[in-house]
Amino acid sequence: MFYRKSRLQYHARPDQPDPVYARKLQEVLGGQWGEISVMMTYLFQGWNCRGPQKYRDMIMDIGTEEIGHVEMLATMIARLLESSPVDAQEKAASNPAVGSIMGGARIEDILASGMNPQHAIVSGSGAMPADSVGYPWTSRYTVASGNLLADFRFNVTAESQGRLQVTRLYNLTDDPGVKDMLSFLIARDTMHQNQWLAAIKELEEDGLEMTPCPSNFPQDLEKSNVAYKYMKFAQGDASLDGGWAKGAAADGKGRIKPVESPDGVGDDDLGLAEPMLYGTPKMPMKKLAAE
Amino acid sequence: MFYRKSRLQYHARPDQPDPVYARKLQEVLGGQWGEISVMMTYLFQGWNCRGPQKYRDMIMDIGTEEIGHVEMLATMIARLLESSPVDAQEKAASNPAVGSIMGGARIEDILASGMNPQHAIVSGSGAMPADSVGYPWTSRYTVASGNLLADFRFNVTAESQGRLQVTRLYNLTDDPGVKDMLSFLIARDTMHQNQWLAAIKELEEDGLEMTPCPSNFPQDLEKSNVAYKYMKFAQGDASLDGGWAKGAAADGKGRIKPVESPDGVGDDDLGLAEPMLYGTPKMPMKKLAAE
Amino acid sequence: MFYRKSRLQYHARPDQPDPVYARKLQEVLGGQWGEISVMMTYLFQGWNCRGPQKYRDMIMDIGTEEIGHVEMLATMIARLLESSPVDAQEKAASNPAVGSIMGGARIEDILASGMNPQHAIVSGSGAMPADSVGYPWTSRYTVASGNLLADFRFNVTAESQGRLQVTRLYNLTDDPGVKDMLSFLIARDTMHQNQWLAAIKELEEDGLEMTPCPSNFPQDLEKSNVAYKYMKFAQGDASLDGGWAKGAAADGKGRIKPVESPDGVGDDDLGLAEPMLYGTPKMPMKKLAAE
Amino acid sequence: MFYRKSRLQYHARPDQPDPVYARKLQEVLGGQWGEISVMMTYLFQGWNCRGPQKYRDMIMDIGTEEIGHVEMLATMIARLLESSPVDAQEKAASNPAVGSIMGGARIEDILASGMNPQHAIVSGSGAMPADSVGYPWTSRYTVASGNLLADFRFNVTAESQGRLQVTRLYNLTDDPGVKDMLSFLIARDTMHQNQWLAAIKELEEDGLEMTPCPSNFPQDLEKSNVAYKYMKFAQGDASLDGGWAKGAAADGKGRIKPVESPDGVGDDDLGLAEPMLYGTPKMPMKKLAAE
Amino acid sequence: MFYRKSRLQYHARPDQPDPVYARKLQEVLGGQWGEISVMMTYLFQGWNCRGPQKYRDMIMDIGTEEIGHVEMLATMIARLLESSPVDAQEKAASNPAVGSIMGGARIEDILASGMNPQHAIVSGSGAMPADSVGYPWTSRYTVASGNLLADFRFNVTAESQGRLQVTRLYNLTDDPGVKDMLSFLIARDTMHQNQWLAAIKELEEDGLEMTPCPSNFPQDLEKSNVAYKYMKFAQGDASLDGGWAKGAAADGKGRIKPVESPDGVGDDDLGLAEPMLYGTPKMPMKKLAAE
Amino acid sequence: MFYRKSRLQYHARPDQPDPVYARKLQEVLGGQWGEISVMMTYLFQGWNCRGPQKYRDMIMDIGTEEIGHVEMLATMIARLLESSPVDAQEKAASNPAVGSIMGGARIEDILASGMNPQHAIVSGSGAMPADSVGYPWTSRYTVASGNLLADFRFNVTAESQGRLQVTRLYNLTDDPGVKDMLSFLIARDTMHQNQWLAAIKELEEDGLEMTPCPSNFPQDLEKSNVAYKYMKFAQGDASLDGGWAKGAAADGKGRIKPVESPDGVGDDDLGLAEPMLYGTPKMPMKKLAAE
Repeated sequence: MFYRKSRLQYHARPDQPDPVYARKLQEVLGGQWGEISVMMTYLFQGWNCRGPQKYRDMIMDIGTEEIGHVEMLATMIARLLESSPVDAQEKAASNPAVGSIMGGARIEDILASGMNPQHAIVSGSGAMPADSVGYPWTSRYTVASGNLLADFRFNVTAESQGRLQVTRLYNLTDDPGVKDMLSFLIARDTMHQNQWLAAIKELEEDGLEMTPCPSNFPQDLEKSNVAYKYMKFAQGDASLDGGWAKGAAADGKGRIKPVESPDGVGDDDLGLAEPMLYGTPKMPMKKLAAE
Repeated sequence: MFYRKSRLQYHARPDQPDPVYARKLQEVLGGQWGEISVMMTYLFQGWNCRGPQKYRDMIMDIGTEEIGHVEMLATMIARLLESSPVDAQEKAASNPAVGSIMGGARIEDILASGMNPQHAIVSGSGAMPADSVGYPWTSRYTVASGNLLADFRFNVTAESQGRLQVTRLYNLTDDPGVKDMLSFLIARDTMHQNQWLAAIKELEEDGLEMTPCPSNFPQDLEKSNVAYKYMKFAQGDASLDGGWAKGAAADGKGRIKPVESPDGVGDDDLGLAEPMLYGTPKMPMKKLAAE
Repeated sequence: MFYRKSRLQYHARPDQPDPVYARKLQEVLGGQWGEISVMMTYLFQGWNCRGPQKYRDMIMDIGTEEIGHVEMLATMIARLLESSPVDAQEKAASNPAVGSIMGGARIEDILASGMNPQHAIVSGSGAMPADSVGYPWTSRYTVASGNLLADFRFNVTAESQGRLQVTRLYNLTDDPGVKDMLSFLIARDTMHQNQWLAAIKELEEDGLEMTPCPSNFPQDLEKSNVAYKYMKFAQGDASLDGGWAKGAAADGKGRIKPVESPDGVGDDDLGLAEPMLYGTPKMPMKKLAAE
Repeated sequence: MFYRKSRLQYHARPDQPDPVYARKLQEVLGGQWGEISVMMTYLFQGWNCRGPQKYRDMIMDIGTEEIGHVEMLATMIARLLESSPVDAQEKAASNPAVGSIMGGARIEDILASGMNPQHAIVSGSGAMPADSVGYPWTSRYTVASGNLLADFRFNVTAESQGRLQVTRLYNLTDDPGVKDMLSFLIARDTMHQNQWLAAIKELEEDGLEMTPCPSNFPQDLEKSNVAYKYMKFAQGDASLDGGWAKGAAADGKGRIKPVESPDGVGDDDLGLAEPMLYGTPKMPMKKLAAE
Repeated sequence: MFYRKSRLQYHARPDQPDPVYARKLQEVLGGQWGEISVMMTYLFQGWNCRGPQKYRDMIMDIGTEEIGHVEMLATMIARLLESSPVDAQEKAASNPAVGSIMGGARIEDILASGMNPQHAIVSGSGAMPADSVGYPWTSRYTVASGNLLADFRFNVTAESQGRLQVTRLYNLTDDPGVKDMLSFLIARDTMHQNQWLAAIKELEEDGLEMTPCPSNFPQDLEKSNVAYKYMKFAQGDASLDGGWAKGAAADGKGRIKPVESPDGVGDDDLGLAEPMLYGTPKMPMKKLAAE
Repeated sequence: MFYRKSRLQYHARPDQPDPVYARKLQEVLGGQWGEISVMMTYLFQGWNCRGPQKYRDMIMDIGTEEIGHVEMLATMIARLLESSPVDAQEKAASNPAVGSIMGGARIEDILASGMNPQHAIVSGSGAMPADSVGYPWTSRYTVASGNLLADFRFNVTAESQGRLQVTRLYNLTDDPGVKDMLSFLIARDTMHQNQWLAAIKELEEDGLEMTPCPSNFPQDLEKSNVAYKYMKFAQGDASLDGGWAKGAAADGKGRIKPVESPDGVGDDDLGLAEPMLYGTPKMPMKKLAAE
């Protein structure tokens, strides 16, 4: 069950409106690695968690925090899209791309430069659950497999890709208010990377999961002669210079060896076509329909 | 540039047709964590790579291998969907779910149980680039950000989720031929998890990337007072028992401390609505249209 | 900012597992009119609201409640997918479709009937943010236009379609625990239909919006001679018997009259094709490429 | 069965080409609330209608009219994308953004500003069944539930959101020809809002449906103690000031009362993980694979 | 502008309900090659056509006919989902899969076998604009490029894939009423294949388009030394035995020759990474943020 | 099984960076008719092929070549997005739209004009598997039906639409390096159109498939009285002037005749609504829920 306080976790107020930047900022709200993705991923991982309570509660903590991050970004985007107070207006007047939306006279000029037209036509100056090209958020961005190691690895990824995108966006604006909020989100992503790395370590220490994941599958059932072989399919030898091509494996269970010219062993021909499905057969055949 | 040899990397021949299992196996061909996803992810990471050559070549090696895995699964699925040779036919005759497709008399009975109808109507007994519920593969399953640490973390995830799904599918069949092929894929996923973990270690040793990722963003620009704080938003104290809530951070750059009752600091109200977009205002206003 | 309590708003415990019904129940979790849709719709309407505070707070109240409904359904689905306690197990043993998942021996039989295979392969017995055919939830199911009348009308619809689907699902099970939870959701949908109808009435009384929506567009700018005309394009006269074809309009601003044989007035031909885009022209033309 | 007359329902001819506006206008052709959505929604509602004939015929009337609206918008967009006659050309010459497409010399300049590149590359100056960010139309925008009250409420919404978007687009252009056509569409949306409101009234008068929808579900089966309770989950008391929080309910069947501090009653823990699906368990367990 | 007659172009009445077959039949209503795809494709091709009038009118003829085909399939599916008259009921009683829906007692049994659950929960026994796995129709199935040869080739394909799917569905039922309607659709697909082949021939005779398409691009601008070379990238020589590997080209403008061992000529390395985007560079570099 | 050589099939190096053109070029990489579509289509057609070996090998040849085309375009796009060498830099300095990305000072100006923001935020100056509006590639762009005639017709279409788009893109740039690469791709599309046309001819000569496709369905089962009738649904007689309305059919099996006023024969009413699904009935009925 959830409750809400009418405060934002951190300030989300730009110094002046910037509808073009609002479009870009949508990426970390509704994009593949945006806040909606981590919010929904963590909530579903928590709701589906059958592991120890401390993991479940930790997942729900961060899931609940992320709802608040979605809120901060939605608020920031709505403000980037709205008319500014008078003194900001004068400052903006010298910037034709921003100023025009306030006068109301040539609002179309804004759209013509890099604004998302749906910010005017569809949401009426509000944020949208979509990314920077207007593609809607989809739940296929989320992961909740029931296996915590597989999922926490996803979570480290999400916090890395997310922090990467926010730092790029930090460099794409010089609005102090926007930069202030982004520096908050970047810091939280630093924490969350550390948080998931700690959780992975703890999973291993608790004896619940380890590499190769899932660790509860009996490894003697896999085709052991290829489980620690680096296979080189591309030309050149540079790839053999890395730790991935030889030496002790990271899972501590084998030594990796390179295979420089891997070959195939399976045949690839198919059998006969089913006549009643009208696939093209190897030889002409008589016409056939079901009774 | 790519070349092809008319062999499969490993055998992909079921002992007998099983259209219902063919539907399930689609998940690891065309699903979120299926072979098409890793094939496309690695190829695009390689093509976009601006890092050292050994990384680029390694990425292309595995990307090229994955095309062959897509091929193996496509072949296996097509065979699971096709008529069997005569002796298999007799054996199958005792299984009404499988036998019926061969006689041609009551092909609809198969579809009525758990087969994907598109395997008959659309692909004519062929594999499809879709998952186990028939949802088409989408490129939003792929990641190639230009930052190798962020991407390699995704790759470890992909090999973990992928191996997890293949082991589950291993338990969902008792066909020796299918199990044989899956044990090959499981072994390769073991190798590939190790491969990406080794690559992450090497990235750090080479001084190219580290936690927090991206490491080239100056950390003094982030809001440092929240960068190592665990915030508890959900009820209960269990989550404070983990290594994520206190102690040295995994990045070696801070010590984590818990915040048991996090509060908000930002206000959340928006400004006035733009009259010409007809959003609902705080007060009734006069009707307005552009000149 | 959001907080969470480790309780569900209402009980969500089935009397026994039923993976086939779990698939169906996904519709009201992650379908077009499921709880994720209303949760996201209301949250974004609230975050984008520039109207009076009482509307904004009311929208956020219900948006926050809906996160809890998503939680209840996710929990119920996870439980429908899991092993039951011993006494339920014995009862279920007589039902081959349900019993098999517990023994673990022939888990594939379940999938072969009506279960969603992703509930085993992808989520490991957890709920997914998808609908009853496995189609992922997409943010295009949400609406937040900035105009409260347009949006509240959507909300009444959502609570109507949602309640309709839950009552249908109520009839598709005889599990007392499931029916108990559904009767709670049905009651909340009753409240929420009333809630949005009251809000629409209040919007009109507050003079903020009315029919035709948006009411702030000057109606004298519309083509008035067709603004209150019922046009009959299909054969037969039955459609002229309704209140929509004649009499006072619902907006109180006109009288509707029927047009029995509407005709067109605009021409539909296009101009010449742009030669450099290689569209097919009316006459053969010489070959052309940019310099 | 359908027939076509080579006329448009109304004029659809811009005074001059404007490829940037053509992109925006796509929203009301192929967007969530565009003409394709209402066309397909009404046609499917009509084809699936099992209610009285007058409703069915009325739905088909408007569904058939909407095909003609799709036609008008497609024609308008194609014309906005094409070369203009000579006198318009001269006028446009002073506008570099528009003029360039005609000379053919620097067609890329257009695309660089706000044009949809697919209008050149994909459709060759034709309209596309997509929205203003190029996202394709999807049938998930449509609704046909079999319950006419639930569906008519959707239809009122569609005509409200649609009219809202067209009025916004009306303000984003100053081309008299475009404004003329939009004023026709706005008027029809006025009519259609009235039409669906009249139909809802008639449904109730005919005794077929009423609030709460669906009205044929026995209301004594819902959890009556929460069916008329307004629950406040967000901070602040402003939301209690509305008609939704107290007083007679709109359905005439209850009186609404507020609940200021709603609490949960259900527990949220899950049972044990199924070992063969390799979800993370509460305690370490032995490795397991199917025989 | 469009009109409607309350008749179907042909009978669409099954002998008895069959909800499982209804799901399959959705493929040719709302699938990639279903009737909605050709309806929308032809209508948009017609609306965007700038070629001679006879082509435009022909495209609109068939586009209008296809609306009627969508109608026939929607009606058939709705009837396959509904209760049958009494005498059919008795006949169906011996078929447990079909009989159960009529008694109303155990409607869930139907869904558990191969029915689409949305046919009950979402559409209430109505057809949906989706395919046989429930995936919604998307406008990316349509094509209208402005080049009639490219588009007519698509149309021949659509009528071929469509006819292929309908003949497969013909073999998947033994209901005389369904087979009767399908035989009508198969015949129309025969006509329409001939129609588009004739139109292609006429385009060439009229001198408007020919191979290679688009024919108005000056062929001397293409890299002529590879324009008629068959390149063999896969192992084995079987592919050289076809008319595609040698001899006169179909366009009458060149002679094809095989290249048995094609080689590459371009280098594939990229330049330096942009520091402010935090891509991984070739060498460690100093930390950087925008001012 | 696949192998890779570290060369591109042809040069892919622009004379100077052009991020705006990079966005447009994405269309033929990841759009409906882009190289990923033909790569995946041909690979799946090959893997699913049960016809003669020469067809299977030919399909795999071209499928393998297309992986290399995806590679060329991905490389070109990455280079269009990257900093240029010094001398190009000076040249570009006079073009404010291009020059700004190199200095790093005002990178946002680029995005504001026509660049895809994801090229900076998401891919870090790399190509993406998406089209020119940023819509992700989806496998619903592919076709592999098992019937070679139906599929080869699709392939001719794909090479026509693809070549059309590349020639349009050729006209949208004046960069010699880009034009050089495009002229290579255009030439290969010329070859591939010829290749598939030759393959269609050979299929017919081999007696495997012919018009109407699929030719193995017994034509006497189709409704013969409408199999060669041109039906005119739209106004005007122009459409009767084409070869499609009269004369010998292209399949050589019938003579086409026009039907100037086609009429319907089927009735379109549905039966009674199922009470427990709460669809709106023809008459008021008593409330009903399952026991």
